[in-house]
Amino acid sequence: MSSVERQLDDLQAEIEDEVPSDISISDVTYEGPELVVYTRDPKRFASDGDLVRRLASKLRKRITVRPDPDVLSHPREAEDTVRDIIPEEAGVTDLDFHTDTGEIFIEAEKPGMVIGRHGSTLREITQEVGWTPEVVRTPPIESSTVSNVRNFLKQEREERRDILERVGRQIHREEMSDDEWVRITTLGCCREVGRASFIISTPETRILVDCGDKPGAEGEVPYLQVPEALGAGANTIDAVVLTHAHLDHSALIPLLFKYGYDGPIYCTEPTRDLMGLLTLDYLDVAAKEGRTPPYESSQVREAIKHTVPIEYGDVTDIAPDVKLTMHNAGHILGSAVSHFHIGDGLYNVAFSGDIHYDDTRLFNGAVNEFPRVETLVMESTYGGRNDYQTDQADSERRLKKVINEAYERDGKVVIPAFAVGRSQEIMLVLEEAMRSGDIPEMPVHLDGMIWEATAIHTTYPEYLRDDLRDRIFHEDENPFLADQFNHIDGGEEERQEVADGDPCIVLSTSGMVTGGPIMSWLHHFGADPDNRLVFVGYQAQGTLGRRIQNGWDEIPMNDGRRSGNLTLKMDVETVDGFSGHADRQGLENFVKTMNPRPEKVLCVHGDESSVQDFSSALYHEYNMRTFAPKNLETFRFK
Amino acid sequence: MSSVERQLDDLQAEIEDEVPSDISISDVTYEGPELVVYTRDPKRFASDGDLVRRLASKLRKRITVRPDPDVLSHPREAEDTVRDIIPEEAGVTDLDFHTDTGEIFIEAEKPGMVIGRHGSTLREITQEVGWTPEVVRTPPIESSTVSNVRNFLKQEREERRDILERVGRQIHREEMSDDEWVRITTLGCCREVGRASFIISTPETRILVDCGDKPGAEGEVPYLQVPEALGAGANTIDAVVLTHAHLDHSALIPLLFKYGYDGPIYCTEPTRDLMGLLTLDYLDVAAKEGRTPPYESSQVREAIKHTVPIEYGDVTDIAPDVKLTMHNAGHILGSAVSHFHIGDGLYNVAFSGDIHYDDTRLFNGAVNEFPRVETLVMESTYGGRNDYQTDQADSERRLKKVINEAYERDGKVVIPAFAVGRSQEIMLVLEEAMRSGDIPEMPVHLDGMIWEATAIHTTYPEYLRDDLRDRIFHEDENPFLADQFNHIDGGEEERQEVADGDPCIVLSTSGMVTGGPIMSWLHHFGADPDNRLVFVGYQAQGTLGRRIQNGWDEIPMNDGRRSGNLTLKMDVETVDGFSGHADRQGLENFVKTMNPRPEKVLCVHGDESSVQDFSSALYHEYNMRTFAPKNLETFRFK
Ligand SMILES: [Zn+2]
Ligand SMILES: [Zn+2]
Ligand SMILES: [Zn+2]
Ligand SMILES: [Zn+2]
Ligand SMILES: [Zn+2]
Repeated sequence: MSSVERQLDDLQAEIEDEVPSDISISDVTYEGPELVVYTRDPKRFASDGDLVRRLASKLRKRITVRPDPDVLSHPREAEDTVRDIIPEEAGVTDLDFHTDTGEIFIEAEKPGMVIGRHGSTLREITQEVGWTPEVVRTPPIESSTVSNVRNFLKQEREERRDILERVGRQIHREEMSDDEWVRITTLGCCREVGRASFIISTPETRILVDCGDKPGAEGEVPYLQVPEALGAGANTIDAVVLTHAHLDHSALIPLLFKYGYDGPIYCTEPTRDLMGLLTLDYLDVAAKEGRTPPYESSQVREAIKHTVPIEYGDVTDIAPDVKLTMHNAGHILGSAVSHFHIGDGLYNVAFSGDIHYDDTRLFNGAVNEFPRVETLVMESTYGGRNDYQTDQADSERRLKKVINEAYERDGKVVIPAFAVGRSQEIMLVLEEAMRSGDIPEMPVHLDGMIWEATAIHTTYPEYLRDDLRDRIFHEDENPFLADQFNHIDGGEEERQEVADGDPCIVLSTSGMVTGGPIMSWLHHFGADPDNRLVFVGYQAQGTLGRRIQNGWDEIPMNDGRRSGNLTLKMDVETVDGFSGHADRQGLENFVKTMNPRPEKVLCVHGDESSVQDFSSALYHEYNMRTFAPKNLETFRFK
Repeated sequence: MSSVERQLDDLQAEIEDEVPSDISISDVTYEGPELVVYTRDPKRFASDGDLVRRLASKLRKRITVRPDPDVLSHPREAEDTVRDIIPEEAGVTDLDFHTDTGEIFIEAEKPGMVIGRHGSTLREITQEVGWTPEVVRTPPIESSTVSNVRNFLKQEREERRDILERVGRQIHREEMSDDEWVRITTLGCCREVGRASFIISTPETRILVDCGDKPGAEGEVPYLQVPEALGAGANTIDAVVLTHAHLDHSALIPLLFKYGYDGPIYCTEPTRDLMGLLTLDYLDVAAKEGRTPPYESSQVREAIKHTVPIEYGDVTDIAPDVKLTMHNAGHILGSAVSHFHIGDGLYNVAFSGDIHYDDTRLFNGAVNEFPRVETLVMESTYGGRNDYQTDQADSERRLKKVINEAYERDGKVVIPAFAVGRSQEIMLVLEEAMRSGDIPEMPVHLDGMIWEATAIHTTYPEYLRDDLRDRIFHEDENPFLADQFNHIDGGEEERQEVADGDPCIVLSTSGMVTGGPIMSWLHHFGADPDNRLVFVGYQAQGTLGRRIQNGWDEIPMNDGRRSGNLTLKMDVETVDGFSGHADRQGLENFVKTMNPRPEKVLCVHGDESSVQDFSSALYHEYNMRTFAPKNLETFRFK
C-alpha cells in the first residue's frame, strides 16, 4: 500500500469517526488539492449545514462531498426538482448532470440566488436530489473566451479528473528528505521588465512561478534549459504558479507543455481565462508578423486543462511541504500576490507579482498582510527615484478636459489602450463622467480585444473593487453594460460609419500603436486637426506610439489594405496616471506597511536603474536586507 | 561527418602543410586534451628537434607524435638499441614496449638522464628505433601506491585509451549556444571547513571543482543531488577538477563513479597518487569504525583510470569553452591553484584551493600571477581577525628546544602528525637540525602512512621547493633518504624495541590522536614523565588530541588489543607554526599582491566567523567586491 493510500484510509476512518453513524462513507480520494468524500447518504450529509466546514477544519483540507454514483437519482427527475428549487430570477442558462461524479453544473445569471444565504439553496438541492451542485456565472456580456474554456473543460472532464487525481497524489506524497533549505532561482525578470520566471526549491519540491516573454525582445525567453529549471526534464517541476495573465508573466506557460510538463498550473479563474485569450492572441500576432510561434494553440488548451483554480485567501496544499495562498494584487483582473508557506513553519516567501498599491476604480489595492513572511520578491517597474505618477483624480480631470475640448470643436477622440485592465479603468471613468455630466453623453466605441476582455471582467465581479462589485450585485447597475458602450463588430464598414458620424470616443488596441485596429482609426481620424489622439498608457521605446508622442507625423500605413504614408494632423495628447502598476511611492508603501515586515527583499521586474534605486532605498530608509539579483542566480534563505 | 572529424581532417591538412614533404601523416586523433599525430616516418619527424613545438604553437594544442603501428621495429631489437643509448647511470628499472601505440614506457632512477638536454636523448631514441619514449621516475623509496597506480594503468591501457578518445571528442565538440554567461554554484565548503565542492557553469559546459568530505561530520557531504549538480545525471558534468588530495577536497571523487560519472578528472600526478592513498585509507577507516563506506575500492580505481594528469603551468583545453591551468599552491604535494579561462576571453576564474603563501621547507609559496583573473574563489581557513601564526623560524627553534630538553632527560619524543605534508616538513626540520648539530643525532621513527606518503614525495621532486629539488637532483643529497629515518614496518614488536631503547623521535599518525599507531605510542611512552608528546598541527574540537592539549590525562584505550584507561604522565607540549595553510597575513598577501587584481572574491573554506572577517577585511582594506556565500547558492559573473 502506498503512503498516499494509507493516508486516505486514515482520513476515511477520521471522517467516519466525525460524521453521524447513519451517514456511510464509501470512498475518499484526492483530486488536486481537494479531498473528495463519496457518501451513500448525500441527503443526510447535506442536512447538517456545518458538517463539511467542521471536517475541513479538523482535517485541515479542502473538502468536496459527492454522492456515491450507485445512489444517484435519475437526472430527468432530478432536473425538475432542481428547477423548482432555484428561484426564477436566478436566470439559469445551463444545467448539466454529470453521472460520473454526481455533480450538477449550473450556469446562472445570478449565481448568488442559486447559492442562497450561506449556501442554503445549494444544500436544499442536495437534500432533495442527492446530487452536488456547482455554480458559475453566465457572463452578462457574452464572452467567447469564457464559453470556450467552459465547454472545453466539460468536454475534457475525464482526462481532467485523471490529471487531478495524479496531481493529488503528488501533492500528498510522503516527504523524503531530512534536509531543510529554501532557495529561489532567477530565470528571468532581473534587472529587466519581462520574462518573469522564478523557481522556489526545497529538498522536496520545485515550483515555477510565472513564465513570461519579454515584450520587444522575442529571443529573450526565460532560461528554462538550465539544469535547475527544466534541464533535468519538464516534470522535475512539481507545480507552476501564475501570478497574473499579462504576457510578460504567462506567454510561455503553454510552452512548458510542449516540453512535456504534465503538472498543475495554479492561478485564479479570471487569470486562467485571460491567459487563454492573451496567449492565443500572442500566437496570432506571431503568425501575422511572420515569426514561428514557440508553441501551438493545442498547448494553450493543455495549459487550461491543467489549471487548478485558486480563490483569493484560500490556503491550498500544492506540495508535501508547500502551501499557496493568493491575494488580490490590484493590478489586473485576477492578479495575485502569491504567498508560499514552506515546511510547516520553516519559511515564508511572498511574490508580489505586479501590483497596484492604492485602490483604483477597478480594483482594491494590493493585499500586504500575511500570517508570516520572511522574504519578499518584489516588482520594481516604477522603482526609480523619479518614478512618481500623477494622482488619479488629476489624471481623470485632465482626461475629461481633453475630451470636452475635442467635443467643443466637434472632434472625435481615439485612445489606444491595452485590452486588459486599462481599457476597463477608462470605461469606468467615462461612464461616470457622462452620468455626472462632466462630459457630454456620446458613444464610446470599443475595438479589438477590449470588448472580449470586458466581458471576462463582467464574468468575475467578485474580483473587482468592493463598491463596484456591490453596485453590480445589489444595485444591478453594471457600468460596463451602459448604453453608450458599443462593440465594433462590423469591421471597416462600421468604422467608416463612426468616422462619418457625430463626436464620439474610440478605445482601441493595440495600446502602443504597434498594429491592430488602432491603425485603421488613425487612418479615419488622423487627417482632421479637430480630432484627438490621447495616450493613457506607457509607450515603450521603439513603438510607433512613442514616436508619435515624440512628434512624428508621417505614419507608415502598410497593413495590406493601405500603403504609403499618412500625415497625422490630429492633435496628440498624453494623460498620465492610469498605470496598473504602483508608482515609486506605492511600491514603498506596499513594503513599508507590509505586515509582518519582510526580512529580505529581492527587487525584480524593473530596468537596471529602477531595481538598483529601489533596492538601495529600501535598504537605507527601512533597513531591510535587499538584493538586486541577476538572471540565473540562486539565493538560499534557510 | 561529425564536427570533430571535420576538425581533425582540417588539423591533419594543416600539419601536412607544416611538416617537410618526406614525412607522411597517417592519422590525427584526440586523446583527452592531447592531439595525437601518427606518422609513418617517426625517425624523420624526430630529426627536427623543434618541429613538435612549432606545430603545438601553430595549432594551439598539446601534441604527441607516435609511429604508425605498421612501421614499428621489433621490440627485441629496439630494446637493445634503447639500452645502448640511455647512459648506465640513468638507472633504468623498467622498460616496456606498447605495440598498440608505439610507446616505450621507461622507468628510471634518474629520468633526467633518459631525457637528455632539452630532450636530446629522447629524440635520439626515436631517431634510432622509431618508437616514442615516455619516462617516469623510479621512486627512490619504494612506494606501493606509485607502483600500484602505474601497474594498474598499464593493465587498463586499452580501456584508458577509449576513455581518453571519448574525452577528447567531448572537449573538442562544437559549441552549441550563442548565449554567454559564467556562474559558480556552491555545493559545500561555505561558512564551514570541509566538503569542498563547486560547479562552474557556462551555456556549454559544467565543471565540478573538488568533491570532499567534512571531517568529523560524516553525514555532511556535498549537495550532489540538486539538479544543478548531478540531479540531471552524473554525466551532465563535463569534467572534474581536483585542486589537491586532502580528503576534504577529494574523499567523494570516487563516489561520482558510483553515480555513473564517466568523464575525466584533472589534477597533478602526485594528487592522483595521493588521492589513491588517502581515499583507500578513508574506506579502511570507515570499515574499522563500523560505518558503511559510501563507495568501494573499485571506484577509487575508476577515478585513477579517468585521471588526466596536468602539469603546473600547462594550458589545457578541458571543454569547448574552458582552458584549465594549474599552478603551485604551496599547500601539499601537487596542490594547485586552478585557473579557468572561459570563452576565449570572456571571463577568468581562479580557485585558490588550499594555499600556503610563503615558502615552506617543502614547497615554494603559492602562485598568484595570472594572465587575467576577474573572480577568485579563496580559502579562508585562517581568515579570522586573530588568526596570525608564529613565524616558522621561531617554531623550529621551539621544536628543537623541546626535543633537546627531552633528550637531556633521556626521554623520547612522539609527534602526532598527518601523513601527507606536515610529516615531511617536520622530517626536513629534524634532518637539518641533526646535520647542523642543533639537536643530537638520534633515530626518527616513521609510523603509519607517513613512510608511504614520504615515498610519494620523493617520486615527484619537481613539485618540491626549488632549492630542495636542486639538492635532490644535482647534489644527490635527498634529505628524505637520511640514515636516521626508520620505517616502523615490524609492528608492535618493533615499537616495543624502540620503547626499550635509547632516546629517539617518533612521528606517527593519526595527526589528531583519533586512532592509528599513535595510540600504541601513547601506551609505550605515556607513563614516563621524561617522555614528551609534541603537537605540531591543529587539533579539532572533539578529538582526543584536543582533549589532551586541554589537560586530560586519563586516556581510554579500547583498540581491541588493549582496554581500560591509561594515565598519561608524559609531558605535553604544543609547537604552532607548521600549518600547511596560509595564516591571516598570508591570505591577505596572496590577494593583495595578486596580479592582476581580482574584481570579486568569494571567501570559502573557513568557519562562519573567519569567512565573514576575511570577506569584510578584503572589502574594507582593498576595496574588492567580496562575498561570503552559503552552500547551494549560484552566483553569476557575466
Ligand atoms: Zn456533461
Ligand atoms: Zn502585469
Ligand atoms: Zn509584469
Ligand atoms: Zn588541504
Ligand atoms: Zn581543505
